[in-house]
Amino acid sequence: MVKSYNQHCPVAKTLDIVGEKWTLLILRDFFLHGARRFQDLQDSLTGIAPNTLSARLKQLEQQGVLERKSYSDSPPRFEYVLTEKGNDLGAVVKALYDWGVRYT
Amino acid sequence: MVKSYNQHCPVAKTLDIVGEKWTLLILRDFFLHGARRFQDLQDSLTGIAPNTLSARLKQLEQQGVLERKSYSDSPPRFEYVLTEKGNDLGAVVKALYDWGVRYT
Repeated sequence: MVKSYNQHCPVAKTLDIVGEKWTLLILRDFFLHGARRFQDLQDSLTGIAPNTLSARLKQLEQQGVLERKSYSDSPPRFEYVLTEKGNDLGAVVKALYDWGVRYT
Repeated sequence: MVKSYNQHCPVAKTLDIVGEKWTLLILRDFFLHGARRFQDLQDSLTGIAPNTLSARLKQLEQQGVLERKSYSDSPPRFEYVLTEKGNDLGAVVKALYDWGVRYT
């Protein structure tokens, strides 16, 4: 269940999708590395609980930001990739990155 | 006390400052309206608890993103304005806005 700001503003509506803790760092990993498996993300995001990571990925898939793709039938294995909609969040991640380089 | 991601990545360091719930919506109000008083923000951000708003403003002031300015001595009254560092977060808010217009 997503906690929504219940505002009509486009900034608030975007944050309804990517504003929860960890979500933008998960997306960062896709911009850095491309396709990611659950375990790749778990290894990269020190401190994230597996059930939190699972919930964030499910939410991003439901919102059409990530897509789950099979890369092995036996055993069944999946990886996640950015959709076009997800790829367009690159401007958000880049703006966070640029500000961090300058000020932190 | 800020919950930190404890990562060296500039994206994570920026999110340590602006990634908590409400913070980016508070900043949005400054880009829309300029100087803001506590009550202006309280009225605009439906559902924010006063102690949460107070904590976010204090954090942003401590991080040099907002500055508190006196606009009346008697009674003493304050408003908040963006610093240059805060103004440079405009790119983040604009990227969130643009994506929201396109996809939400």
